[in-house]
Amino acid sequence: MILITYFPIVVSLFAIAFVVYLVLQISKAPAAKDKAVAITAAIQEGANSYLKRQYKTVGIVAVVLFIALLIFMSWQIAIGFLIGAVLSALSGFIGMWVSTRANTRVAEGAKRGLAFALDLSFKGGLITGLMVVSLGLLSVASYYFATGLSGLIGLGFGASLISMFARVGGGIYTKAADVGADLVGKVEKSIPEDDPRNPAVIADLIGDEVGDNAGMAADIFETYSVTVIATMILGALLFPRAPQFVLLPLFLGSISILTAIIGSFFVRLGKSKSIMGAMYKGLAVCIVLSAVGFYPLISNMMKGQSISVMNLYLSTLVGLVIAAGMFVITEYYTSTSWGPVKSIAKASETGHGTNVIRGLGLGMQATAFPILLIAFGTIISFWLAGIYGVALAVMAMLSLSGIVVGIDAFGPITDNAGGIAEMAGMPEDIRKITDALDAVGNTTKAVTKGYAIASAGLAALVLFAAYSQEVARLSGSLSAAVFTLDNPKVIAGLLIGGLLPYLFASFLMGAVGKTAGKVVEEVRRQFREIKGLMEGTAKPEYGKCVDIVTAAALKEMMVPVIITVLAPVVVGYILGVQALGGLLIGSIVTGLFVGISMTTGGAAWDNAKKYIEKGNFGGKGSFAHQAAVTGDTVGDPYKDTAGPAINPMIKVLNIVALLIVAWLV
Amino acid sequence: MILITYFPIVVSLFAIAFVVYLVLQISKAPAAKDKAVAITAAIQEGANSYLKRQYKTVGIVAVVLFIALLIFMSWQIAIGFLIGAVLSALSGFIGMWVSTRANTRVAEGAKRGLAFALDLSFKGGLITGLMVVSLGLLSVASYYFATGLSGLIGLGFGASLISMFARVGGGIYTKAADVGADLVGKVEKSIPEDDPRNPAVIADLIGDEVGDNAGMAADIFETYSVTVIATMILGALLFPRAPQFVLLPLFLGSISILTAIIGSFFVRLGKSKSIMGAMYKGLAVCIVLSAVGFYPLISNMMKGQSISVMNLYLSTLVGLVIAAGMFVITEYYTSTSWGPVKSIAKASETGHGTNVIRGLGLGMQATAFPILLIAFGTIISFWLAGIYGVALAVMAMLSLSGIVVGIDAFGPITDNAGGIAEMAGMPEDIRKITDALDAVGNTTKAVTKGYAIASAGLAALVLFAAYSQEVARLSGSLSAAVFTLDNPKVIAGLLIGGLLPYLFASFLMGAVGKTAGKVVEEVRRQFREIKGLMEGTAKPEYGKCVDIVTAAALKEMMVPVIITVLAPVVVGYILGVQALGGLLIGSIVTGLFVGISMTTGGAAWDNAKKYIEKGNFGGKGSFAHQAAVTGDTVGDPYKDTAGPAINPMIKVLNIVALLIVAWLV
Repeated sequence: MILITYFPIVVSLFAIAFVVYLVLQISKAPAAKDKAVAITAAIQEGANSYLKRQYKTVGIVAVVLFIALLIFMSWQIAIGFLIGAVLSALSGFIGMWVSTRANTRVAEGAKRGLAFALDLSFKGGLITGLMVVSLGLLSVASYYFATGLSGLIGLGFGASLISMFARVGGGIYTKAADVGADLVGKVEKSIPEDDPRNPAVIADLIGDEVGDNAGMAADIFETYSVTVIATMILGALLFPRAPQFVLLPLFLGSISILTAIIGSFFVRLGKSKSIMGAMYKGLAVCIVLSAVGFYPLISNMMKGQSISVMNLYLSTLVGLVIAAGMFVITEYYTSTSWGPVKSIAKASETGHGTNVIRGLGLGMQATAFPILLIAFGTIISFWLAGIYGVALAVMAMLSLSGIVVGIDAFGPITDNAGGIAEMAGMPEDIRKITDALDAVGNTTKAVTKGYAIASAGLAALVLFAAYSQEVARLSGSLSAAVFTLDNPKVIAGLLIGGLLPYLFASFLMGAVGKTAGKVVEEVRRQFREIKGLMEGTAKPEYGKCVDIVTAAALKEMMVPVIITVLAPVVVGYILGVQALGGLLIGSIVTGLFVGISMTTGGAAWDNAKKYIEKGNFGGKGSFAHQAAVTGDTVGDPYKDTAGPAINPMIKVLNIVALLIVAWLV
Repeated sequence: MILITYFPIVVSLFAIAFVVYLVLQISKAPAAKDKAVAITAAIQEGANSYLKRQYKTVGIVAVVLFIALLIFMSWQIAIGFLIGAVLSALSGFIGMWVSTRANTRVAEGAKRGLAFALDLSFKGGLITGLMVVSLGLLSVASYYFATGLSGLIGLGFGASLISMFARVGGGIYTKAADVGADLVGKVEKSIPEDDPRNPAVIADLIGDEVGDNAGMAADIFETYSVTVIATMILGALLFPRAPQFVLLPLFLGSISILTAIIGSFFVRLGKSKSIMGAMYKGLAVCIVLSAVGFYPLISNMMKGQSISVMNLYLSTLVGLVIAAGMFVITEYYTSTSWGPVKSIAKASETGHGTNVIRGLGLGMQATAFPILLIAFGTIISFWLAGIYGVALAVMAMLSLSGIVVGIDAFGPITDNAGGIAEMAGMPEDIRKITDALDAVGNTTKAVTKGYAIASAGLAALVLFAAYSQEVARLSGSLSAAVFTLDNPKVIAGLLIGGLLPYLFASFLMGAVGKTAGKVVEEVRRQFREIKGLMEGTAKPEYGKCVDIVTAAALKEMMVPVIITVLAPVVVGYILGVQALGGLLIGSIVTGLFVGISMTTGGAAWDNAKKYIEKGNFGGKGSFAHQAAVTGDTVGDPYKDTAGPAINPMIKVLNIVALLIVAWLV
């Protein structure tokens, strides 16, 4: 019986052991040689030093908050906060560490063929994915068994806060470098991407690691942990006499860790040699096995409870369907095979303006199906099993994070591998393989972002439900918890909450634009002042660009995070719990639209450019291509800075509200 | 006593007489001669024929709806619908008619100096403004005195529906022509704006009339009427025994028509020769006199009612403060004198991409103060006088429409005057005057859009309050009217409602992009095939471009309007009144953000380009200028198509909900 209760911990430890095995496998593969050694070292060093500085800055904030929580809340919350914060940071760090070692091995491994390089790069991603979910499950389960429910909100807050810093800082870093590098390199000098002559190229490659990898890993660690925690809290509030409702999310998570490991073995090139197909195969296996595995679990564990086994089970299926649906929808809007991306490419023929107009319009349009999916998923799972059913659906959706993050983290690894191959001047046939992997990496990064924002929105809804239940419980009456739309305070809250994602995104867009401008000036300066740079006889000063983006990212990440933490406190204190409830929902509503339109629109711009580069509408160097590069530049901070940073943001708002609710009521 | 009751009707008739006097004054001014005659005739004919075709298309929809309302609702609603529809169409038509006569006289009048030209152009705008409010007040008051409250919703629906068609059709027309003209003219051929060699230039000038003028006039007619109606309905529902609450909005409107007429006499060049200053002087006088005039009215009319005179009066002041605040905020974000526009201009130095990123970021940021103003305005006016106080604030804000629309409609007149002067090859000193007027027209168009969207949002909130009260009254219980955020149907409604502005805007962006692409191809063809066109020895085929945009605007306007009318019916029928309540609020929340960010961002892009053209950051023809032209192109459908079309859209949703509520409950 004890063994059964501790099943989630056992599974997490098993997954961590499997991760260690994967790390050993990757280490055994030969690292790239010659020129690639210095490049890899520069990326590792840059990423490492950025993350250290980021965590040092964030550490100060964390210590202040830790002390505040210790004084004003409880030691359980304070210690939980510390655990969440440290593990979120660790998730990001491990992701970056593995990725900056896998990248060079993938470039070298491409010499042995596509299948080998694919295997290495996917395993590199999978390490991050499995690490994220197993650390999440392990920490939540252990801390719950050790201290009960009361400290878990602290853990969630710690995870959210750090992941928000990681997303914001990493996001500004990666896109300021990328946009800056492209604006001079591609547009003004007409040299290829990742050309070693471009002084911003190393900063760009580091950016992939600290933004797309470390930032994303911290983000999903947080969404995962927070969802488990919120579902457990809801279970306890709604069914105080049935601890099974508290434990169920931990067990669902365990099942999916196992199915993710099994699914990962199916990620292999088939006859069609489709890399994306290999990924989807693994994902499909994981989803199907989870759907199969959830039933015996639920029927054994939840027999004889107030909600029927079948209804609980169907709720988890709703979650899996939403996850699968998000993949299909995002693939449709962002892949070069379908109409939307092609229409952006076509619009590029008539200029920069029409390209941007089309991309903006498409991004907005791309919100339709995800929103309907989320809306109907919420209604159906609620109809099946009440608000706990909604939480269960979200939990089921997020239980897939292990393999989804694996597919996602594949992106920066192959992006870097392509960059290293290009910079080290590897032969054409190897670059063909790394380019093919890189192209798929772009798609996987795009597709998994749809999943990330949808799950973040749903997780935030579950947190709101917990907030609402807490208000009702603490005030001892149902009326206080009623957030009605006729109440002008609720409306004001909705508007202020709706404003936060807009303000937040505008701040990040501004930070990227400003910093990219500085990079452009520095790169122009180097091309002007360093003789022989364009001819390839002199080396650029890569470090200068790295310094610019590092300093800017660290500086610009503070304000948006602080606003996010303070907003619920200020609104709750001045306007009360009902306005705060409005604020939470308002931020989720506009957050979903801003997040989806930005991430999908940005990826569609990126792939429209790639579609033209394949030779359509005039190909590289044509008028249409120039316009498409502009679209891609605009899409960069959309899809990799502002858009994904909405995910942790809407959850930080909700968690802070949960933390202070007792003080407000 | 009878005279006092009919005071609103008397005032409206007086204002119409004043309008006739203004029309005569303008007619007396000499029309432009020589080359300008043909150009003016082409604009008049094109605008006329487009509006006729638009109203013919819309007429079919209107007749179908009229019959449906007659069968399923009541004759009062059906006839009201017809009156609202006809008067909305008439507002647009009169605006266009006057404007296409004033434009050429302003160009000619510039020969007599700035003061004379300003006087003519402002009077031209004022005709539209006063016509809109007096028709609004006259129709609502007369129909109310004739048939009571029951038919007024029909009148509001008619006005909203037609204004939505006008905004959508006119918006697509104007920007498809503008973007198409600019992309080839400015970007590819480097010829000036409004150059007679550009085959799309006549279509562009017509677009200003049918979009910025006729569309805007119909829109404000609708917001004004609907606000009066919603406030009257709320007054009747909340205070069934005190008819003063029903009549008060009509009287507030009457006061402001008189203060607008007085204020208009203060629009004169002062010592500083500032055109914008002259406008603001007139507006300020109107606001101050309204604030002064409201007090004796309210204290006489509302003495001894359940809400104190002072609280009612303060509510109206809140509305005036919101109006003034919106002007100040929008001016800050869109004028070349302040930081935001300059920062976009600066970002243009590093390329198309950074220009667009900066503009998008700024547009999002520009939502902050308006949203806070609206949120706190709502809370304060509710605190003062309940939901009726909120309605009163909105009514006070909208009572300024007469002079505000005057200032706004000044824009297309001077824009056209500048175009005619340029095309007719008038001398440099005259073009300097028309250019100065045109530049201010750009700012007034921008500034009044902030007012329009804020008032539309608030008007929609008042409509929602009426919907909510109706649900409560019809279902006979309070619980049915409670739209709580814990209810997943309300959440689903919020999400679906939030989606509508996104979907709607994406559709319009797509329509403009697509049609502009066709215009580009046609213009390129003419430059290629018509020999001597570039040299000025051959004439372009203006009519071809006019045909393209006319056909596209009429075709593309149907779907978004139909979706808007059907959405509340479908959601209300399938998911019920509570989901519909969520939908209404969801559309207001995201609608405000989409609307404000688009209109303000678009205007800022436009003026950033103008700022560079004044000689900053390299001036005309520089790299920064090219980037700024891209930003302006993107901003065009933002500020003149998608953004302003949100205004009627969110009100159509709410009015349809009010219409069908009895059937749903």
